[in-house]
Amino acid sequence: MNNINLVQKYISNSQFIRFGFFLFTLSIMNLNGLKAQSTEDHSYLIKSIYEKALTDQMAYKWLYYLSEKIGGRIAGSPQNYAAIEFTHQILDTIGTDTVWNQPCQVNYWYRGKEEVARIINHPLIGTVELKVLALGGSGATPITGISGEIIEVKTLDEAKALGFKLKDKIVYFSRAFDNKHVRTFNAYGGAVDQRVFGPNVASKFGAKACIVRSMTGRLDDFPHTGVTIFEDGITPIPAIAVCTNDAEILSQLTQKGPVQVYVKTSCENRGPKQSYSVIGEIKGTEKPNEIILVGGHLDSWDVGGGAHDDGAGCVQSMDVIYLLKKIGYKPRRTIRCVLFQNEENGLAGGTEYAKVSNKNKEFHFAAIESDAGGFTPQGFSFDSDSSALKNYLPFFKTWDELLSPYDIHFDKGGSGADIGPLRSQKGILFGLKPDSQRYFDYHHTAADRINAVHPRELALGSSAMASLVYLLDLIP
Amino acid sequence: MNNINLVQKYISNSQFIRFGFFLFTLSIMNLNGLKAQSTEDHSYLIKSIYEKALTDQMAYKWLYYLSEKIGGRIAGSPQNYAAIEFTHQILDTIGTDTVWNQPCQVNYWYRGKEEVARIINHPLIGTVELKVLALGGSGATPITGISGEIIEVKTLDEAKALGFKLKDKIVYFSRAFDNKHVRTFNAYGGAVDQRVFGPNVASKFGAKACIVRSMTGRLDDFPHTGVTIFEDGITPIPAIAVCTNDAEILSQLTQKGPVQVYVKTSCENRGPKQSYSVIGEIKGTEKPNEIILVGGHLDSWDVGGGAHDDGAGCVQSMDVIYLLKKIGYKPRRTIRCVLFQNEENGLAGGTEYAKVSNKNKEFHFAAIESDAGGFTPQGFSFDSDSSALKNYLPFFKTWDELLSPYDIHFDKGGSGADIGPLRSQKGILFGLKPDSQRYFDYHHTAADRINAVHPRELALGSSAMASLVYLLDLIP
Repeated sequence: MNNINLVQKYISNSQFIRFGFFLFTLSIMNLNGLKAQSTEDHSYLIKSIYEKALTDQMAYKWLYYLSEKIGGRIAGSPQNYAAIEFTHQILDTIGTDTVWNQPCQVNYWYRGKEEVARIINHPLIGTVELKVLALGGSGATPITGISGEIIEVKTLDEAKALGFKLKDKIVYFSRAFDNKHVRTFNAYGGAVDQRVFGPNVASKFGAKACIVRSMTGRLDDFPHTGVTIFEDGITPIPAIAVCTNDAEILSQLTQKGPVQVYVKTSCENRGPKQSYSVIGEIKGTEKPNEIILVGGHLDSWDVGGGAHDDGAGCVQSMDVIYLLKKIGYKPRRTIRCVLFQNEENGLAGGTEYAKVSNKNKEFHFAAIESDAGGFTPQGFSFDSDSSALKNYLPFFKTWDELLSPYDIHFDKGGSGADIGPLRSQKGILFGLKPDSQRYFDYHHTAADRINAVHPRELALGSSAMASLVYLLDLIP
Repeated sequence: MNNINLVQKYISNSQFIRFGFFLFTLSIMNLNGLKAQSTEDHSYLIKSIYEKALTDQMAYKWLYYLSEKIGGRIAGSPQNYAAIEFTHQILDTIGTDTVWNQPCQVNYWYRGKEEVARIINHPLIGTVELKVLALGGSGATPITGISGEIIEVKTLDEAKALGFKLKDKIVYFSRAFDNKHVRTFNAYGGAVDQRVFGPNVASKFGAKACIVRSMTGRLDDFPHTGVTIFEDGITPIPAIAVCTNDAEILSQLTQKGPVQVYVKTSCENRGPKQSYSVIGEIKGTEKPNEIILVGGHLDSWDVGGGAHDDGAGCVQSMDVIYLLKKIGYKPRRTIRCVLFQNEENGLAGGTEYAKVSNKNKEFHFAAIESDAGGFTPQGFSFDSDSSALKNYLPFFKTWDELLSPYDIHFDKGGSGADIGPLRSQKGILFGLKPDSQRYFDYHHTAADRINAVHPRELALGSSAMASLVYLLDLIP
């Protein structure tokens, strides 16, 4: 449930909160010499943020460079280091007080030569190429490839029940997205266990390789990569995602009889490397020790340009700094932009960031992550330690009033993987919630490029984030 | 301002309404034998509508045929009649009780051969082709074309002030979209007077021809056609839209000195024809004389496929019938799907429909138009005669509660051109309000084709409309 209804319900149902709504008592803000006290002032300032973002479209310009000139930037890759250098330089030129790179240890997974997979010698269709991508973390086949018979399963449980019947087979996880879900992230959540844990199960029972249906609700020709995780001691077997059109063919053929498939991959684990999260901040004038964080993750998959995932979140976070500076806003709290490293296959950046922050006894008053694509924002979901949330609830009504004209609403839900570890600091965490309908058309594919992003939609995300930062900073 | 805040404000500010909100007293519904009385029942039924729409995706299938197989369907054209036949047949097969074509007189404007325009013999850039489209309603050049010097103006007032200095010139209206607007329809509203009335002003003062900058906020190569209106007695001079990239070049050149342009068009007015709006209905079981209308307009411009404008609205309205039948809902009121004729250049269908309806003493309890594209819906704007609105206001709170989980919110605003004439019947009018960011990338261009429409976004529009029809029908 959305917006203030949710908040009202949350308040009335909660065992600990009996606040009700009261008017947003506004502190007197130092804003270009103007004392912004009234709702009209706030409304005007938010309008300025939106207008600046929509006319300058800086986020889109940066995203063009990041996704097209640098491209896919998996942690530890040369592109990854180029992205660190580029974003560091940008943050340095848009008015931050300090910019630094925070080191973290990542594991550099390298795809190697393009993958090959084909149905071989099938009595009905002969030999047919499949469009596939190796999964991040998976192993290579021998240089000559491997072939074997497919055994199709729909769930992890089904695979486990078959047990050693999987031995020497190529296990095919074929469960499709459930398109009944209105939010595509729910369909993803209902299918992605096959990709993340399927190959591990297959390997445990001696399978030669694993094929997973791509994580999308569309029928098309784009295979979707993504991380797969092997437990310690379990061999990382070759594991590939197959595009949904080919997945349909495979599923039809397995109904009719045995299907032989040839697979060749040449991925390698290039071992631990030092990479970096990139951080820039504007120091707060009144409460410098209270941090309002905006962030996304700088790494992406190696195919495509990582435009929506998560170039969008990075450039929007940088845009927040740009916009607040451009309108002349002097924040009371420290505004920090963090471009986290290695969200896709390790979360090293987010984990390290929280560790360092806790060690330095920092307090994140709020953190906002954008990692759901650069589409038109529909609002923010919020998450917080329950004892902390009560400090923020009184302000939701004003936020809703000021941001609903921009179609921004609030609901309870997840925030972001990178900022998740900050929950223990007992601030509030937000996830930007863009329209999700097109996200899994591009997610982790070669199609996640700049032309899949709309400059105005991207700018609306920056604007919503900058506006929320402003509103959070107003809290006395 | 959005959703229930708006409604609350509207209530408290209104001079005549002091209702406040009270709980939605629900009537006992005949629903597959089930007596649907509780919010849970309604919530379940709305969920069924969404799930059916997202899995069957009928609207998209129909839109593919309408926009790609039939294509652009300006009123009076062969494609226009094919579209009437196709949609009539579909409505006949999805469970309506009656389908009929309602005649109306349209004026068939025919583009003729492709337009040509070029900058000629310019000292800096020589002769350069311009990407243009003739405006609907404009006249033809002589068969050899015309050439003349450009005179650039930004506004109608500026043109009027120049008066007979425009004589024998080619008047160029060059004012761009103001991209600061969050809703692109506001940017359109701020620029479109140039296209609709500019050529008429130019003609009055003896201009040879008129060029108008295309109605979009993007810089690209697609010219955008659309209607232009000449007063009685004013010669319909040749008038063309130029793509925004070329518009920028023209504006740069006119700063430097005289610019000569050659234009050739061969449009003709093929005179009055009889065309039809297509209407299908399910008769209400309890209040057959109260109509809940859903509609879009069946005609489109002749270029492209009219996929967003307004194939989307037509197939969504048909989908409402399909979905309500499929979930087994038996409406108390008459549900009528109207595919209006000739919205683009005359509004003959909408005008005639209201005339016939008034003559037959019908009462439209509510009407919902979808004519703003097939993108993810953000809600509905509502419009009503003020004395009538009070009958509906008590129900907004429940609508908001039931539909905000689907990101559907309500605000006051326009409804739709075709249903506008029904306002005098004192029901309530709604306009589906989709995300507007991409709409003017395609509007009235060759790019308005099926691949610009996302099947899930389209289905969410159908679902929102069908859900609102259901909620309206619940009103005692």
